[in-house]
Amino acid sequence: MQGHPVSESRVILSHLMLPQDANPAGNVHGGVIMKYIDNAAGVVSVRHSRTNCVTASIDRLDFFKPMFIGELLTLKASLNMVGSTSMEIGVRVEGENLLTGEKKHVASAYLTFVALYGEDAKVKQLPPIVAETADDRRRNEEARYRKAHRLEEKKRMLARQEKIGL
Amino acid sequence: MQGHPVSESRVILSHLMLPQDANPAGNVHGGVIMKYIDNAAGVVSVRHSRTNCVTASIDRLDFFKPMFIGELLTLKASLNMVGSTSMEIGVRVEGENLLTGEKKHVASAYLTFVALYGEDAKVKQLPPIVAETADDRRRNEEARYRKAHRLEEKKRMLARQEKIGL
Amino acid sequence: MQGHPVSESRVILSHLMLPQDANPAGNVHGGVIMKYIDNAAGVVSVRHSRTNCVTASIDRLDFFKPMFIGELLTLKASLNMVGSTSMEIGVRVEGENLLTGEKKHVASAYLTFVALYGEDAKVKQLPPIVAETADDRRRNEEARYRKAHRLEEKKRMLARQEKIGL
Amino acid sequence: MQGHPVSESRVILSHLMLPQDANPAGNVHGGVIMKYIDNAAGVVSVRHSRTNCVTASIDRLDFFKPMFIGELLTLKASLNMVGSTSMEIGVRVEGENLLTGEKKHVASAYLTFVALYGEDAKVKQLPPIVAETADDRRRNEEARYRKAHRLEEKKRMLARQEKIGL
Amino acid sequence: MQGHPVSESRVILSHLMLPQDANPAGNVHGGVIMKYIDNAAGVVSVRHSRTNCVTASIDRLDFFKPMFIGELLTLKASLNMVGSTSMEIGVRVEGENLLTGEKKHVASAYLTFVALYGEDAKVKQLPPIVAETADDRRRNEEARYRKAHRLEEKKRMLARQEKIGL
Amino acid sequence: MQGHPVSESRVILSHLMLPQDANPAGNVHGGVIMKYIDNAAGVVSVRHSRTNCVTASIDRLDFFKPMFIGELLTLKASLNMVGSTSMEIGVRVEGENLLTGEKKHVASAYLTFVALYGEDAKVKQLPPIVAETADDRRRNEEARYRKAHRLEEKKRMLARQEKIGL
Repeated sequence: MQGHPVSESRVILSHLMLPQDANPAGNVHGGVIMKYIDNAAGVVSVRHSRTNCVTASIDRLDFFKPMFIGELLTLKASLNMVGSTSMEIGVRVEGENLLTGEKKHVASAYLTFVALYGEDAKVKQLPPIVAETADDRRRNEEARYRKAHRLEEKKRMLARQEKIGL
Repeated sequence: MQGHPVSESRVILSHLMLPQDANPAGNVHGGVIMKYIDNAAGVVSVRHSRTNCVTASIDRLDFFKPMFIGELLTLKASLNMVGSTSMEIGVRVEGENLLTGEKKHVASAYLTFVALYGEDAKVKQLPPIVAETADDRRRNEEARYRKAHRLEEKKRMLARQEKIGL
Repeated sequence: MQGHPVSESRVILSHLMLPQDANPAGNVHGGVIMKYIDNAAGVVSVRHSRTNCVTASIDRLDFFKPMFIGELLTLKASLNMVGSTSMEIGVRVEGENLLTGEKKHVASAYLTFVALYGEDAKVKQLPPIVAETADDRRRNEEARYRKAHRLEEKKRMLARQEKIGL
Repeated sequence: MQGHPVSESRVILSHLMLPQDANPAGNVHGGVIMKYIDNAAGVVSVRHSRTNCVTASIDRLDFFKPMFIGELLTLKASLNMVGSTSMEIGVRVEGENLLTGEKKHVASAYLTFVALYGEDAKVKQLPPIVAETADDRRRNEEARYRKAHRLEEKKRMLARQEKIGL
Repeated sequence: MQGHPVSESRVILSHLMLPQDANPAGNVHGGVIMKYIDNAAGVVSVRHSRTNCVTASIDRLDFFKPMFIGELLTLKASLNMVGSTSMEIGVRVEGENLLTGEKKHVASAYLTFVALYGEDAKVKQLPPIVAETADDRRRNEEARYRKAHRLEEKKRMLARQEKIGL
Repeated sequence: MQGHPVSESRVILSHLMLPQDANPAGNVHGGVIMKYIDNAAGVVSVRHSRTNCVTASIDRLDFFKPMFIGELLTLKASLNMVGSTSMEIGVRVEGENLLTGEKKHVASAYLTFVALYGEDAKVKQLPPIVAETADDRRRNEEARYRKAHRLEEKKRMLARQEKIGL
């Protein structure tokens, strides 16, 4: 099966933040940013797999700076790693104050998506990714580390639950 | 006053079309696309002027292909012309079927925005644009033609209204 | 084919402007007004043709006054002209300050809609309009002028593109 | 204090029903219609009092027919009665199938609104209404009956609660 | 047919009030609260009948205190009475200021829902309710009183309309 | 400083899933569930701290089952651990098919929130939590483990970035 370069599924989404995106304090609602992160990662997953996909997990999402109404939210999402049925996608969220041009790093996230192959799909496997740049390779390596680590952690949790009789 | 290159204010916005964007027939609502076109042109106007701006007019907006739920809407907006207080901004709207990668030209529009300089603004004039590429120059020329033509048309309308006593 | 009077498809839509309709500056978002203009013209097109219709173009949309949250937005839409497959619809947008009763002219627009006749439609042609009042006739005449002019302009554009080899 | 005729505050709001207005069964959500009823009555209350008002109660709201996506919802609201601080407003809700022109009576409601006079308001009393037509007078009489009846019912409730020691 | 206890269909819905829920004055829109009341009563009706249901009427809805953005809205809905095809559901709406923990009684409502049994439903009758507590019994008795009273009122209206020739 | 029991800030939010919450495939949008998770955790954070709080991170969010339109989404959120300025909050998301009464485990998440003490706050420290039940204690212990682990992981990342010269 032929691989697809990371650049083929990479996507940039940008949204102008409107009052309807605000939380009670008047800043952009964290949940609104989460929804856009999910959308951005979802676009990458479908572009790479050319099939419907669903969010399996947010492996980590860190907020660094608040977003304000009137600013431009930009999400850069790209594929870090492809397993047999799942994909890790990284999303970097930036904000731009349009009146000054100043930019800031708002959030970063790693999500895992899985492909939903219908009954009659000929191909039931994800195409591998081709890491073309040094950045692509570094992200892939880090994603593999995170995945190995999540499996270890899962084992620990199960052992613990068994021990306390859950 | 120093000019700003067209590329400095150019923007690309992308949105995943969701069921809440549908019209009664199930396609993407034309009004939803209009709202995003207005947002895209608005971002360009603020990036160029670094002040608040408002939509003065849609000089023309043509729809070429329908957009469907689940497709990715991409708006490319850039500055065509700068007058003393107004800017003409062109927006090209494309759709991408994420399952096939197929793209289509959905709509194109020209809008005029005006800057709202507050009482205490030091500079009350728009910076000129610097057309760097052949495309920039061609768009600028066309925008000048459209503006001249709009002024003529306005004169004709006024003359006519006077004649029929409106 | 029997014609329908302009008054049969004319419509008035009114909406109370809520905070979720605001732009970052706190006024009503221009894109929200565009969406309501599209809805109003859409109602006229379906009422006249009794079939599904889509927006083909906004031929012109001018904003004259800002709308504020809490005001009542009223859209008056009526049919100006019917061609073989397309309709020109005019929309006048007014705002009312409910606390004072003061009204203002917010925007005006001309849109072209086309009917979507399904495979099994017996009639595949738009019914003509019957202009009953002097206003109806004046609007029809102006709409014919605009249409002729748009065709001319299109020809000029094509000739120009050929010349520069696009 | 001079009265205002019922016709001065009467309002007609119309909305095209979109997929985002649907309930899980695919019809228009009853709660969406309630929100528009509240908006329509709110417009009447402000137009009559020229001050901010709030919903005190829905005295009765009956649904007669379901509304479908793509239909035009029309709300006709007018003032039935004015008390010292409160107003009864009646709202009739109709639906129109735009493809056939068929209309239906969707719902009817009576609501009570109260004026919120700020600290510095010179006038702290509602202007009376002038019932001009037979319909205006009949609605006023019925509203007076309903109000008297609500007061009686309240007394009964209080007596009952006292008896059972609530 | 076996009855279901009131507690089986009782539901508590809670929502954080966001800026998009505001009315022009900045408080929570009465219509937004109405929509949530309808949702809460709808959940009770489906839980009791295990079939699709629709709102037949709001028999009464009283607002006692305004709700503010940032507060927690809580709706407690339970079944008061079951007739042959209709259910009366009571909804109590409370607000909580999360910064102080202070609570308030925002609104109370009685709604009537009817079950929509499809063609192929085996059971075409609502299961009775079992009132288990003194509160359940008191609410049931009151609901019966309200229903009897509504029928009487309907008779009066019809007689009156006949008399005036409507 | 006196501690607050976990039960004091625990919250249950329930929402009826409507068509406007759908993703292009027609299920409930993962991003909508994320937004509600954020809201639920936000309520807990404010209830415990009695001050404004913001989402610092989603430490993990796992989706187990899809949610469908018409189902009832229920979020149970409680405080697992309190640090000097941050809180770990756990959210369990369940779905209920109202027509059958069947329930399912939809998702689980851990989030970290931080309190935003304004300039004039007398107390600038979070009250400790009092774990009252065995479950409270188990969750607290697990949260401490996760926090220690995150710090370790951060150290590893920084060391790695230094090594590759980022």
